[in-house]
Amino acid sequence: MNPILAVGSVAFDSIKTPFGEANRVVGGAATYFALAASFFTEVRIVAVVGEDFGANTQKVFAGRNIDLTGLETVPGETFRWKGEYGFDLNSRETIYTHLNVFEQFKPKIPASHRSSPFVFLGNIHPTLQADVLDQVEKPRLVAADTMNYWIERTPEDLQRVLRRVDVLLINDSEARELAGETNLVKAARKVQAMGPKTLVIKRGEHGVLMTRPSGGFFSAPAMPLEEVFDPTGAGDTFAGGFLGYLASCENRDDASLARAIIYGSTLASFAVEDFSVDRLLRVTKDEIDARFQEFKKLTHFDAI
Amino acid sequence: MNPILAVGSVAFDSIKTPFGEANRVVGGAATYFALAASFFTEVRIVAVVGEDFGANTQKVFAGRNIDLTGLETVPGETFRWKGEYGFDLNSRETIYTHLNVFEQFKPKIPASHRSSPFVFLGNIHPTLQADVLDQVEKPRLVAADTMNYWIERTPEDLQRVLRRVDVLLINDSEARELAGETNLVKAARKVQAMGPKTLVIKRGEHGVLMTRPSGGFFSAPAMPLEEVFDPTGAGDTFAGGFLGYLASCENRDDASLARAIIYGSTLASFAVEDFSVDRLLRVTKDEIDARFQEFKKLTHFDAI
Repeated sequence: MNPILAVGSVAFDSIKTPFGEANRVVGGAATYFALAASFFTEVRIVAVVGEDFGANTQKVFAGRNIDLTGLETVPGETFRWKGEYGFDLNSRETIYTHLNVFEQFKPKIPASHRSSPFVFLGNIHPTLQADVLDQVEKPRLVAADTMNYWIERTPEDLQRVLRRVDVLLINDSEARELAGETNLVKAARKVQAMGPKTLVIKRGEHGVLMTRPSGGFFSAPAMPLEEVFDPTGAGDTFAGGFLGYLASCENRDDASLARAIIYGSTLASFAVEDFSVDRLLRVTKDEIDARFQEFKKLTHFDAI
Repeated sequence: MNPILAVGSVAFDSIKTPFGEANRVVGGAATYFALAASFFTEVRIVAVVGEDFGANTQKVFAGRNIDLTGLETVPGETFRWKGEYGFDLNSRETIYTHLNVFEQFKPKIPASHRSSPFVFLGNIHPTLQADVLDQVEKPRLVAADTMNYWIERTPEDLQRVLRRVDVLLINDSEARELAGETNLVKAARKVQAMGPKTLVIKRGEHGVLMTRPSGGFFSAPAMPLEEVFDPTGAGDTFAGGFLGYLASCENRDDASLARAIIYGSTLASFAVEDFSVDRLLRVTKDEIDARFQEFKKLTHFDAI
């Protein structure tokens, strides 16, 4: 087992969907990531919360394979975000983003975590992502997320850190923007040339497309779901399931990468079934494995 | 082998994409459908063209497993359509639609075709689709296409013919509109209750989702392509590959349906690589089977 060092946000979210509202519930990329990945391996969170986060730490992370040594609590308020989803859940409007204590976040990697073999860099300033890599000792695998904001405003910082990234997980519009290329296949090739040999393109309800270091693509649909309550955190949950499973594998061959995509999709399919992290807190490893098998039924066909 | 009776349009298209233009080239749903399906079984076209179609009949259909007994030539001009695609090929604007001889099209099924075991009803007025079914003798399988236009303007006629349809092939927005339901899983269940136990939802570059008569779904991605020149006819080509392969199978079990989806996707992936039917006219069965195997590599993962 390879422990994963995960750097990112732990937050309070307020969410409005056509199916209801949730106010000041636990969210944040590192939260979703850690909950998903901890089904497969140890996760070491590096993040910051305000004093108002209180008993939520215990409620969300306790009793799981999650190391909280790197979770700082500082005076002030926790990162808060509010979003509202359109009727088909594909469009989302940000009502507000209050960075609060996250504004001064400078990830400090505890000494005991510096030799972590897997590193996940959540969606933070690319310079901070690089700072994290400067503090760790030769990780076996570096995965990262980013977003349009950094692609547009800090392209050089982003390029510098991408050279040190093995696996980049972004959505399709981000991939197109990063590459300056409409065609997704060509965009993927260009991003691979920037550093990350494995590019995982998240397409929401349309599933995932992954480039393989060995060449070629792997593609997986999202699980068709009758009830989608809250898509918040689906991408981070996907990343956690993907990287968690990969960290539990002996190697990173095509077969392991493909299964990792399916585990990521499986975890994400649970995350959206309830508000906040509620479904992830309830789901069991048996349910996860059963849904993995549903993915097999959903996609399998016999070769000719 | 089950011959397929295919009723629909044979047309002249004018197409503008970011990669070029093609004027007055051969198109039409029945054309794309027949070319794709004829790789697997005999196709019997029922359609109408004007006297201006001329030597195109020979150029496009000759030397293939396509029976033209039901292709009428009448005085006047052939159906003409002009469309223009946006920069990412996902949006399309219709510049004009001149029905011409197609306006008076009343499908007459030749006596020799009335016992066709498979029937494909292209996207025409639902009352004309029903007229076709009145002329055939107990087909083993009836497949149909439709569009928003009929869903909105002739809902009762459409409902009447849907009761007689086994396989409905439509895109995702049509499925949602037909069911009056945003969630695609719920929409699919509602459409199944209208008649077609197999609903094939075409999602363009995002692939295909199929309900299975046995319950559950099958999902397949589109082949990631570096060059997409012209998406015109991709859906009709998909239908041809899907139904053609199915007609060549002994039965309609889940395994055959899944492979049929992949053959449909394979044919469609060729169709978009060049303007009009040009790529379909050049493609060989060996190329088709090789790309089917690429789909296997693209989607395969090991069960746990």
